[in-house]
Amino acid sequence: MEELNKNQSHSPFTQPIRCIVKLGGAAITCKNELEMVNEEILQKVSEQLRQAMIASSEKPPGMDWSKRHGGSEICCNPEEFGDHSATECSRFIVVHGAGSFGHFQASKSGVHKGQLNKPLVKGGFVATRISVTTLNLEIVRALAREGIPSIGMSPFSCGWITSERHISSADLSSVAKAIDSGFTPVLHGDAVLDEIQECTILSGDVIISHLAAYSKPEYVVFLTDVYGVYDRPPTEPDAVLLKEIAVAEDGSWSVVKPKLQNSIELTVAAHDTTGGMKTKISEAAMIAKLGIDVYIVKAATSHSLRALNGDLRSSIPDDWLGTVVRSAR
Amino acid sequence: MEELNKNQSHSPFTQPIRCIVKLGGAAITCKNELEMVNEEILQKVSEQLRQAMIASSEKPPGMDWSKRHGGSEICCNPEEFGDHSATECSRFIVVHGAGSFGHFQASKSGVHKGQLNKPLVKGGFVATRISVTTLNLEIVRALAREGIPSIGMSPFSCGWITSERHISSADLSSVAKAIDSGFTPVLHGDAVLDEIQECTILSGDVIISHLAAYSKPEYVVFLTDVYGVYDRPPTEPDAVLLKEIAVAEDGSWSVVKPKLQNSIELTVAAHDTTGGMKTKISEAAMIAKLGIDVYIVKAATSHSLRALNGDLRSSIPDDWLGTVVRSAR
Repeated sequence: MEELNKNQSHSPFTQPIRCIVKLGGAAITCKNELEMVNEEILQKVSEQLRQAMIASSEKPPGMDWSKRHGGSEICCNPEEFGDHSATECSRFIVVHGAGSFGHFQASKSGVHKGQLNKPLVKGGFVATRISVTTLNLEIVRALAREGIPSIGMSPFSCGWITSERHISSADLSSVAKAIDSGFTPVLHGDAVLDEIQECTILSGDVIISHLAAYSKPEYVVFLTDVYGVYDRPPTEPDAVLLKEIAVAEDGSWSVVKPKLQNSIELTVAAHDTTGGMKTKISEAAMIAKLGIDVYIVKAATSHSLRALNGDLRSSIPDDWLGTVVRSAR
Repeated sequence: MEELNKNQSHSPFTQPIRCIVKLGGAAITCKNELEMVNEEILQKVSEQLRQAMIASSEKPPGMDWSKRHGGSEICCNPEEFGDHSATECSRFIVVHGAGSFGHFQASKSGVHKGQLNKPLVKGGFVATRISVTTLNLEIVRALAREGIPSIGMSPFSCGWITSERHISSADLSSVAKAIDSGFTPVLHGDAVLDEIQECTILSGDVIISHLAAYSKPEYVVFLTDVYGVYDRPPTEPDAVLLKEIAVAEDGSWSVVKPKLQNSIELTVAAHDTTGGMKTKISEAAMIAKLGIDVYIVKAATSHSLRALNGDLRSSIPDDWLGTVVRSAR
């Protein structure tokens, strides 16, 4: 877990960020097929992001003028753009996970454990970056087709470096400059260099909490493939959706809604065996401690649209399904 | 043209670079079809790069473990890597042009002229980056398949920024760190932010001369779709290949081999109408002035292999076809 109380006086973010969105790997890729985008969900997520970011009721012209795979036509109609001034677009940062991209390559080679001098690790590092940048390009294109001025920015290229798997340096100025120029940066979980163990995997969740600490967005949304955080694996029949989690000054957290009988410690440990929800809650808690509301919600639903819109900031409607993680203050 | 005499005391390149290679857009893409890689040439170029960079006669295991377009199989055999120490790989930097990627998007929108507040320019900026990063990914994958530890690094993401189209800041430390970690950075001509005109296109040739000035490689190779620089468009029947160009202290240059009747000024002006060869010679001359030999040679030929190998450093064999640009000193 990263220490977020470092000196943040040198933040390059000069203007407020509205929202940081995590597109969960499990939500936007097909879990059971290697390197397969869930096109339907990605398209819907992109559409909701456009609705949340761009006030205009009209869909702006698309910005992906490249051929589609297997296609021979370039989709571009410059006349659509006309000569009017640019569409106002909210300041969002998008970060996505890997899902069925990258994980295979990273786990086969053990990139997260370091030791770049091993040929297999070096090969896996290269292979992982190829796989995750392939997904990044697909996501940038899906957003651009909706008229969102998306710009792919790989943490590796941006100079993000870890030290024993914690971020030790991350040049946020290029991300900030991209936003100041009206673009929507799209970052991703990546293979990066590590000062101690030579290399590792930097997860999208860790990137989000780092970005949140420096850019202080109004709110953060995690789009996942389930309705939120449950008290046990959501596949179990009695699983209860935790609707509100409060984070105390000391970083400890408790479930506010609904009232639970079991202790939190226990339920989280149990949940974690199903895959990484503990990291997500920990990172969400770090962000909430800064006074930033975090919404963990199922992608491509009416609930995710309300979260992306920022509709939940004043109060959480009873019919909203998802998990809010916020400061107890 | 960029001023290369700036203070270079802060170069992050701590160890010598052997070679910077430019993969010309015209060589590796199909000129007459939008967004089409010339697979045959790219494969051959990648193979020659591997031969030049990796001493082992055996081809190392491939590092592209992703599915091919339309394929369903991941090509990966971790056992191939064994447990022996890493293959020694020469320190190369690869930079590629755009060819039939990016040009369409950039010219339709006028990204090179700036004014990001115009919707068409912003759309074109996003579209251009999508197109050139698509090509970058293809090239990184082709190199990785040959066992070259290639890492895509976009100038935009690396924080390269121009001022009135000249590079004003470029964080070379991430490129240097990638090389120090044993990787081969693969950069490309890109759409970037400009401090004066908001945005522009940064060409691969300008990137090369900037990198050369700071990293001082032993030699630089430009792989093109013709045998080198000619005294007139190479499609004309009497076109003469300029085999050796000498660059004086003041940056002026003259053809040493063969002896020509016409003046150089004239021939270059004529040549330039056929597309960008003047920029290439200018950038090559800037590099040569630093005492670094530049070889301009046809990609995927026996001549390009000799250039990439560095076989031409002591003397240029009579049967070598290509253009050498070097300091007159």
